[in-house]
Amino acid sequence: MKRSFIREILESIDEHTISFAGGLPDESLFPVGEFDEASRQVFTSASRMQYTTSNGIKELRELIAAKYTREGFPTSADEILITTGSQQAMYLIARYYAHRSITIEEPSYLGAMNIFRLNHMSMEGVPTHEEGIECDLFEHSVAQTKLAYLIPDFQNPSTSTYSRAIRDHVVAILQKHQAIVIEDAPYSDLYFEEKLPSLSQYLPDQSYHLGSFSKTLAPSLRLGWIRASREKIAQILPIKESVDLHTCTLSQYLVIEYMKIQGERYEERMDRVRAAYAAKAKFFCDLIDELLPSFLYQKPKGGMFVYGRFEGIDTKALVQEALKNKVVFVPGAEFYPTEVVSDEMRLNFTRASEEQMRQGLQILADLIDHARSAGQSV
Amino acid sequence: MKRSFIREILESIDEHTISFAGGLPDESLFPVGEFDEASRQVFTSASRMQYTTSNGIKELRELIAAKYTREGFPTSADEILITTGSQQAMYLIARYYAHRSITIEEPSYLGAMNIFRLNHMSMEGVPTHEEGIECDLFEHSVAQTKLAYLIPDFQNPSTSTYSRAIRDHVVAILQKHQAIVIEDAPYSDLYFEEKLPSLSQYLPDQSYHLGSFSKTLAPSLRLGWIRASREKIAQILPIKESVDLHTCTLSQYLVIEYMKIQGERYEERMDRVRAAYAAKAKFFCDLIDELLPSFLYQKPKGGMFVYGRFEGIDTKALVQEALKNKVVFVPGAEFYPTEVVSDEMRLNFTRASEEQMRQGLQILADLIDHARSAGQSV
Repeated sequence: MKRSFIREILESIDEHTISFAGGLPDESLFPVGEFDEASRQVFTSASRMQYTTSNGIKELRELIAAKYTREGFPTSADEILITTGSQQAMYLIARYYAHRSITIEEPSYLGAMNIFRLNHMSMEGVPTHEEGIECDLFEHSVAQTKLAYLIPDFQNPSTSTYSRAIRDHVVAILQKHQAIVIEDAPYSDLYFEEKLPSLSQYLPDQSYHLGSFSKTLAPSLRLGWIRASREKIAQILPIKESVDLHTCTLSQYLVIEYMKIQGERYEERMDRVRAAYAAKAKFFCDLIDELLPSFLYQKPKGGMFVYGRFEGIDTKALVQEALKNKVVFVPGAEFYPTEVVSDEMRLNFTRASEEQMRQGLQILADLIDHARSAGQSV
Repeated sequence: MKRSFIREILESIDEHTISFAGGLPDESLFPVGEFDEASRQVFTSASRMQYTTSNGIKELRELIAAKYTREGFPTSADEILITTGSQQAMYLIARYYAHRSITIEEPSYLGAMNIFRLNHMSMEGVPTHEEGIECDLFEHSVAQTKLAYLIPDFQNPSTSTYSRAIRDHVVAILQKHQAIVIEDAPYSDLYFEEKLPSLSQYLPDQSYHLGSFSKTLAPSLRLGWIRASREKIAQILPIKESVDLHTCTLSQYLVIEYMKIQGERYEERMDRVRAAYAAKAKFFCDLIDELLPSFLYQKPKGGMFVYGRFEGIDTKALVQEALKNKVVFVPGAEFYPTEVVSDEMRLNFTRASEEQMRQGLQILADLIDHARSAGQSV
């Protein structure tokens, strides 16, 4: 089995490499002090250190359910399954649908595609543009597969965000064909302007909605969840149990205690995180426009990435040159379910400092100039 | 897929039920205060809250490797993969060997059997007696399957502990047939008298040795590991990555900080834990001999269980009666790879208080008397 390019990169780059590769949140936004404070409330009783139930601690499931309900998607604690990151959520669901065909966006999330491969699922890619998935082709595919994996908000990697019209259309198609949607929503709270309604809230019995604390609080927690019907949760639960019995209880109690201390201030924090990422995105895009005018891309409306292309440049070759110059990004070919040559690339803007951004993009600009003046695709 | 009886029980019993069912450690032995102290050293930098490498934090892998080396099994940090509990370790390995046949002890660990089923592995059970597995039958089976799952120390559920002679014999068989062994060792440090050598240390390139902090520190950590050759770790790593990217970093740093604070005192702690469990086992066995003289069993040499049988009593029917009387244990039939009627049962002695032990065993004694006087198998 092939390892993920991003994971391999994470292990091989050193501290001097400017990374636009991983989906690593900005560390300066992690609530270190608040977690330190909350951690003092975690080890209050021995019973918290015992084994617990596979679906997760009820108090945490209630917190998550209440957030869905507040946002217009009525949800009870029984409709939440706590997972070891939303990566595990994907894995459990894919394990359940092993050997099935699945409709996905093209390009799509690398981690999910690796999971589908591992579970012998055949992927049908449907092109996705700025406003969302290509609906006619989507209907044609999902009418057969009856199963779709979609990331409607600030898609990873393309940053595509489904418009309201496309959301309505996709919901209607899923209803018409009684198809199941796995809606991956790790970036949904990282919007720069507005939060759009999920697909799942119109399809409560045909959907798995996947959430995560990795991008809003910290990845180290390894805390994610599935929001689905009771019936679907009951089908997934035995797999969760086999995979790791239950998710780390320390993380679960840490978030419970953190939320108690934060209360209403949590929403203020999220406003700050969103504003910080919006400002970083603007700074990064302004730099691209200045240093890399030939980079074709759409400005993101949320999330952590910029995605675009250098016409005629094989970015898989380019990244090897970039690595020698201590800069790294993810070439577009990685995000396709089949082998392709691609001139696309994904750039993460949340991790690097402003100085690193300028330095890294300048290095890329020089490499592109060099490639073009040599009259060859690098 | 069938859910685990033990997990279902954990979710359905209430605080008034006396449980001899789960493998729950004695909560009074959890290092609550020490973890509280160590937790103050965990949130010292934002970088600790970022994503980390899939194989686990190097400092923790070094700690675990050093313990193996001290105990006579030379090991480097690269030969350790940190997992989300040893349950996940089993899952990852089974996923790698999916669709293969595997030789197991009979009876065997329920959680492992569920994992083998989920991965379409066909299990060949080999009877196990007090001194270990039946070697002739084991050789006959493993010559075909080339893959074995064994728990040589204080086996769950049978409490069988391989003698030195049987260990030598099993190692020779595995060498002769170039078979792989998955050696599950969650209880190995919970010996009452002596620690016997692992099988894996004589088969460093043919083995996966599985360890866990769940029984020695606390289950809530969800921290386990695989000790295997670099080649085997490299084969498993992409699966780990797909399943949950990496294990919770908070737990990993908590144990690192805990070990720093504890230092040499950690071994004193383990001596206390072993002494406490040995005393509990003795108390429990004395009570059995007093209240349930017809229970046929061997006194355990370590671990958390007593295993035995009431001749002619179907313990799967008995447990339903027991549950009505607020006592629970695990009927032997659960531990067999195929459907069987069994008069065996597993009793956990680490969780219940002395008063609960007396009360619970008295209730079982009354139910057995009732069944026998009614002249029928309940």
